[in-house]
Amino acid sequence: MNSQGLLEHLEAHLLAHQADIERWLRLEWQKTPAPFYASVDLRNAGFKLAPVDTNLFPAGFNNLNSETLPLCVQAVQSAIERLHIAARGILLIPENHTRNQFYLENVATLRDILQTAGYEVHIGSMLADLKSVHTMTLPSGRNLRLEPLIREGNCISVKGFTPCIVLLNNDLSVGIPSILAELNQKVIPPLQLGWSNRLKSSHFSYYKQIAHEFSKQIKIDPWLIDPLFRNCGEIDFITKEGYECVADNVEVLLKDIQAKYTEYEIPHKPFVIMKADSGSYGMGIMTIHSANEVLLLNRKQRTKMSSTKEGRKVSQVILQEGVYTFETWGEQQAVAEPVVYMIDHFVVGGFYRVHTNRGINENLNAPGMSFEASAFINSCITPDKDMAPDANPNRCYAYGVIARLALLAAAREY
Amino acid sequence: MNSQGLLEHLEAHLLAHQADIERWLRLEWQKTPAPFYASVDLRNAGFKLAPVDTNLFPAGFNNLNSETLPLCVQAVQSAIERLHIAARGILLIPENHTRNQFYLENVATLRDILQTAGYEVHIGSMLADLKSVHTMTLPSGRNLRLEPLIREGNCISVKGFTPCIVLLNNDLSVGIPSILAELNQKVIPPLQLGWSNRLKSSHFSYYKQIAHEFSKQIKIDPWLIDPLFRNCGEIDFITKEGYECVADNVEVLLKDIQAKYTEYEIPHKPFVIMKADSGSYGMGIMTIHSANEVLLLNRKQRTKMSSTKEGRKVSQVILQEGVYTFETWGEQQAVAEPVVYMIDHFVVGGFYRVHTNRGINENLNAPGMSFEASAFINSCITPDKDMAPDANPNRCYAYGVIARLALLAAAREY
Repeated sequence: MNSQGLLEHLEAHLLAHQADIERWLRLEWQKTPAPFYASVDLRNAGFKLAPVDTNLFPAGFNNLNSETLPLCVQAVQSAIERLHIAARGILLIPENHTRNQFYLENVATLRDILQTAGYEVHIGSMLADLKSVHTMTLPSGRNLRLEPLIREGNCISVKGFTPCIVLLNNDLSVGIPSILAELNQKVIPPLQLGWSNRLKSSHFSYYKQIAHEFSKQIKIDPWLIDPLFRNCGEIDFITKEGYECVADNVEVLLKDIQAKYTEYEIPHKPFVIMKADSGSYGMGIMTIHSANEVLLLNRKQRTKMSSTKEGRKVSQVILQEGVYTFETWGEQQAVAEPVVYMIDHFVVGGFYRVHTNRGINENLNAPGMSFEASAFINSCITPDKDMAPDANPNRCYAYGVIARLALLAAAREY
Repeated sequence: MNSQGLLEHLEAHLLAHQADIERWLRLEWQKTPAPFYASVDLRNAGFKLAPVDTNLFPAGFNNLNSETLPLCVQAVQSAIERLHIAARGILLIPENHTRNQFYLENVATLRDILQTAGYEVHIGSMLADLKSVHTMTLPSGRNLRLEPLIREGNCISVKGFTPCIVLLNNDLSVGIPSILAELNQKVIPPLQLGWSNRLKSSHFSYYKQIAHEFSKQIKIDPWLIDPLFRNCGEIDFITKEGYECVADNVEVLLKDIQAKYTEYEIPHKPFVIMKADSGSYGMGIMTIHSANEVLLLNRKQRTKMSSTKEGRKVSQVILQEGVYTFETWGEQQAVAEPVVYMIDHFVVGGFYRVHTNRGINENLNAPGMSFEASAFINSCITPDKDMAPDANPNRCYAYGVIARLALLAAAREY
């Protein structure tokens, strides 16, 4: 089969096997319950649809279409009543960003979802210099009230409010802060899922296994949904220690990708994405087309690769098959990639991450990106067999299936 | 307090106590799980908001706004995975109506919701004369495929499809058919919840108890959400046996209502609704203003009261406090009453039942009614504390709370 028809084939295949897929997923969630929430970045190359990043402390809820709010509310109710039936109050702990208005809007949206779901919600800040309540007015006109955390014994609170549940929207890149350690309260997601404990390579090892199991169920080549990857041991971008290993693995990986491209008569040039093995916010990510490129990185490029969020040093990288995105948005034909949001094991919405100044083989999670949610209104869970396989609700359904496979990988990680 | 402010007071009160209400309900659902689905007819008198009928085999899903479909889908997934995690197929058993296009559209919508939720769905008909598959095209353009039921041992199927779950959308008014008795498969709702086993008076006894418990929690007079009622023993509308008891109870009930009207300075005339104690489809329902009216019923009126759906004889009636509806719809100011739909314990949508030729003290479930869903789009679960207590999402939230109290009464019945 040539590349043109591959993805439509995949979408039609997922649609035809919907009852089997949903049943298989239900049984998997029973074995390994889904994390509380997640967002998954996907790349849709036409001939291939694959996850490239799974965030277990998702920001960006403010980018979802407001019409998906009821789905978020219902999913939160369903999830939390299973985690702690008698809970009444939730303490939401965000990242320590105080000037990133986009992020703060996300916190406000999360608070609104939890409140609408029927919980009393306070936002407890880990900012060291926050000594009293700090209220901000956001661009949306909403207020955000940050309260200093109080730790007493094995219990965390803010003044006048002791929650049953502590909900983290902080990815713990810098490790587990002592104020959160060994709490008696229910902490979701569990501290062990913080980025200080996670490796992308481990996530994608689990994903590979799941992609194989899933592909066996519905009889497809797992490569259609699984990005190849390799990783090395320690690497130092400044001293160039470990560089040879990276270059060697890039070469092997490019050959492996080319072999699949040849098999499917795909006329594109293989590429590799090199990224920090633990980290987020789209930092420390590069597109590479040859082993030589690694060896010839200049100082500026190496400095950029060497640290990620909050200055954390990168000492391990994952080399991942680059997946082209052939999706575009708007009259400008801006390059776009889908991002799917889940609460518990329910797909609740998503959007296209759009970038006008990036190529189809580049990371789009970079300054200048924007978000387009209109194609995702409620439709990831309403496939329609009477429509074409690539019609919007059916394509969104396919996104939701692949995103949930990545979510399952995260569930197995834990 | 005078009547004007009472309901706004109630709505504000429910909103202010949302976290407590939701927690209380969660704990109640844990004790007595919600039936699979239900619709609840409410009456909103301005000074009082109360359920008047609870249907555990709801028709009318086709009247919900299509934008609530994703909420229905998610709620179905949540409910069925709890009932039977490994289920793949569902056999839907509808009423035996073959010409009621409205009802058949409801069956098609239910089928679509279940399919979209990821189940293989067949429609098994109990029609005695259905010997082979019968496919109809409905006014919406959708096809409906009725298949004859096959009973083998303790298992029910249609040709080539044996389901894990049998979903009833047939209210079993005529009793439990032998073809459904003692099945090994999971039957939802359970056969015992059919109308042949239920009495409205029993439902409202449970509701009264729940209204009291709930009102104690949020400190309101339970009468604001609970319709008074009385019932007699056997009654025969043709021979007039048991008539005196009915007349006496109407008199007592009218006095009790007047006492509450006086207490709250409500300037309206009390009335009583007399209806068949088990039955549906709005049949066998009368508005009564005095005991004398009962004694003076003419032959036509008595004949009308004496039988309900499928010619079933009425031998018991419930006398229920009539609740005015002061809601109207459209330029014609047609009389309207809210109907709320739930799947599991989730409110998934609703509509106003509207009637241009009926009064504010009459049953609106009658030929000539229409349905208006636009005020209910997703909003029953998205109260907004920044809006006025009687703003649409907050009024809908209030409807959803009271409807869930009626659902809880049904859960306790079982």
